[in-house]
Amino acid sequence: MKGIEIKKIFRETEKYADKEICVAGWIRSVRASNVFGFIELNDGTFFKNIQVVFEKENLANFDEIAHLNIGSSIYVTGKLVLTPEAKQPFEIKAEKVVVEGLSTPDFPLQKKRHSLEYLRTIAHLRPRTNTFSAVFRIRSLAAYAIHKFFQERGFVYVHTPIITSSDAEGAGEMFRLTTLDLENVPKDENGNVDYSKDFFGKSTNLTVSGQLECETYALAFRNVYTFGPTFRAENSNTPRHAAEFWMIEPEIAFADLKDDMELAEDMIKYIINFCLENAPEEFAFFSNFIDKGLLDRLNNIVTSDFAHVTYTEAVDLLLKSGKKFDYPVKWGIDLQTEHERYITEEVFKKPVFVTDYPKDIKAFYMKQNDDGKTVAAMDLLVPGVGEIIGGSQREEDYDKLVNRMKELGMNPDDYSWYLDLRKYGGTKHAGFGLGFERIIMYMTGISNIRDVSSFPRTVKNADF
Amino acid sequence: MKGIEIKKIFRETEKYADKEICVAGWIRSVRASNVFGFIELNDGTFFKNIQVVFEKENLANFDEIAHLNIGSSIYVTGKLVLTPEAKQPFEIKAEKVVVEGLSTPDFPLQKKRHSLEYLRTIAHLRPRTNTFSAVFRIRSLAAYAIHKFFQERGFVYVHTPIITSSDAEGAGEMFRLTTLDLENVPKDENGNVDYSKDFFGKSTNLTVSGQLECETYALAFRNVYTFGPTFRAENSNTPRHAAEFWMIEPEIAFADLKDDMELAEDMIKYIINFCLENAPEEFAFFSNFIDKGLLDRLNNIVTSDFAHVTYTEAVDLLLKSGKKFDYPVKWGIDLQTEHERYITEEVFKKPVFVTDYPKDIKAFYMKQNDDGKTVAAMDLLVPGVGEIIGGSQREEDYDKLVNRMKELGMNPDDYSWYLDLRKYGGTKHAGFGLGFERIIMYMTGISNIRDVSSFPRTVKNADF
Repeated sequence: MKGIEIKKIFRETEKYADKEICVAGWIRSVRASNVFGFIELNDGTFFKNIQVVFEKENLANFDEIAHLNIGSSIYVTGKLVLTPEAKQPFEIKAEKVVVEGLSTPDFPLQKKRHSLEYLRTIAHLRPRTNTFSAVFRIRSLAAYAIHKFFQERGFVYVHTPIITSSDAEGAGEMFRLTTLDLENVPKDENGNVDYSKDFFGKSTNLTVSGQLECETYALAFRNVYTFGPTFRAENSNTPRHAAEFWMIEPEIAFADLKDDMELAEDMIKYIINFCLENAPEEFAFFSNFIDKGLLDRLNNIVTSDFAHVTYTEAVDLLLKSGKKFDYPVKWGIDLQTEHERYITEEVFKKPVFVTDYPKDIKAFYMKQNDDGKTVAAMDLLVPGVGEIIGGSQREEDYDKLVNRMKELGMNPDDYSWYLDLRKYGGTKHAGFGLGFERIIMYMTGISNIRDVSSFPRTVKNADF
Repeated sequence: MKGIEIKKIFRETEKYADKEICVAGWIRSVRASNVFGFIELNDGTFFKNIQVVFEKENLANFDEIAHLNIGSSIYVTGKLVLTPEAKQPFEIKAEKVVVEGLSTPDFPLQKKRHSLEYLRTIAHLRPRTNTFSAVFRIRSLAAYAIHKFFQERGFVYVHTPIITSSDAEGAGEMFRLTTLDLENVPKDENGNVDYSKDFFGKSTNLTVSGQLECETYALAFRNVYTFGPTFRAENSNTPRHAAEFWMIEPEIAFADLKDDMELAEDMIKYIINFCLENAPEEFAFFSNFIDKGLLDRLNNIVTSDFAHVTYTEAVDLLLKSGKKFDYPVKWGIDLQTEHERYITEEVFKKPVFVTDYPKDIKAFYMKQNDDGKTVAAMDLLVPGVGEIIGGSQREEDYDKLVNRMKELGMNPDDYSWYLDLRKYGGTKHAGFGLGFERIIMYMTGISNIRDVSSFPRTVKNADF
């Protein structure tokens, strides 16, 4: 006995209509009189349930089935009957129902609305709800869309290392990794921790970005991307920060900031279009129950030509706006979310790239512009959120890069391999980073990162 | 000026023939007389180089170009001329060559054969060699093939957590993760490490497997897979072990061991076929220069129906073989590589699933067979390597699972969420794990895991 995937029945209904079929799934609801009953069955392959009708005169185990608890898993055999006059397009008239696994009356997902906060405490069961079924299916589709987008363009996918002995940005708090016995940390003759006894023979951390390693591959394969987990040990207990999250970082050689922005725009549109096409039921759900403006916002993105404005122009726009911001605006500040949202939502009313930021608020590796004050950086701002992508052209000039590292107190010797890329056939190159959870939140309207990660890792929380 | 990707010129030659084009790339070799010269140019988008011919009478900077060092990056503009009589199918007659980035005479990749060991010391430059260009392009294609395979079958991709507070198999040495100050580890009143002060408020590790979390998603979405990095802090300095590697772990509900093996067989064939179709130049290279028998072995896999044998039958075959093994054979031992290779290479001469292993050598979560001695496990053995996949049906019986955990000294309370899957609509389900680097080694003939990982992490080595 083999259950047909319920998605197939919805997508290729003609093929199964009036035929005897077998499905398997979990009971979302069951209601029955003395003579007949209805089951809403979901098998996880599709957002929607299939309706099962069962009758006492056909089923020897009618009473058992009528009293099953929500969450029980069953196999159902019966005829698929089209019901054009009803709410659901078809139903199965059960001829046989076999119980695969029972559930109990204390199953935590009863047929009522549960708060997202409560559902976080049962993260192992929440994908069985409508909301999380939709979120995690879209997460899966979006991940695939990203691979498809880059692979169809000939990009090489690089697995940059997770364990690292360098700090990618000279910033970002990192998790240390160790096999030393914390109860009894070995010390050297000076009383310092003896990392020579650690697994790697030195101090190591979890990566905060694969960018620097990705650059080495871009200067070999031209167009590359990495897509993997990254980590921040930041004590930020906000709806937008997690200690573990996935990031997409493409890197392109023989390319400048303009090419980088074109790539980012194409990628964002591709991801959203792919998900909209492949999960219409899920987006209808989000648009109805989570965020009314969602579909308009997404359609606006995929049909707009993204705007471009320099940081300096953006600051002027903010100063001239007459708006009162919590963080005062002047040239040189890092734009806050309130500023970003004003620019994208009120000035341009569509996604906008802000370029050429002051070098003092950006990372050491960004290409210095001729003005001596700014770097060839870009942030993509989108309505409803603010910044969603950050990128730049990379400094390809060996001397400028070394000088900038020294200005920032970094030791160039620690980055000799990175500097080599500027010694041996360096090229213009550029890249950007997209936080994967951030685009999932954007596409679903879900406002807390804890609700788009399977088992979220945040301050004081690493359950499951 | 925008360089056309060299791959496009090879794949759609007619489109560019006799036209003026521009390419960009890195010089693999340059040789010149006083009046003309040849450059082998590679831009990373394709395994092969394109030949550039340049002549003194056409190029103002002829002397500069003739003396460029290997590794320099250039833009070349000129006409693409078909050369049906020559070794290469076409060449570019340069009209303009612009230097993008110089290289130096001490560029570490000179035009000679370098040992793989030496190339590991310049892991940031080695993707610019033929061998690593081929390895990492195939790695990228294989990763994509895996996503394509599962997504086309409706599987949901789950990002299971990397940071974990549980140990997936009750085995496997793990890396500890901490933000505690190792110079001064906080202790509680009993003198033990005070993990309540650590980032997550408890002791955490890097995952060794996403399986248990994947099971929670399979019992919601039916068919799921995870594909992400996993970690082992094992002090094994062998060509097959790394501390960081990627793993594919599908999990399927309403499915048994037979379904699991069908899925594994289909997946392996799909990955190999996809790579063979999309990287013929790379496979020709491996087959010529790395492993003469490679293509035969891969073709044997994709055209065979995989064999099936139980562990008990396999032990009988080994005992009856008359072969002398380093590790003596008797029922109950864990099969060693020499045993596995005998079974797959000499008995079956094709891939073979060995099933129903003694429960004492397998993990707690595997489904116990009715004989009381074995579990519904499977290993896939392939010629040339031995085990490449390990999987099982999972124990779906709550009581049997709890009893097995207790027998093994595990505390069921630590796994309450995992046990819940057997309380609330449990179903038959199964899954397997494929070490990603292992299949890349298998497909390329590369015998050391350090040569299929971008920046390998092994005992005492976390460089770059």
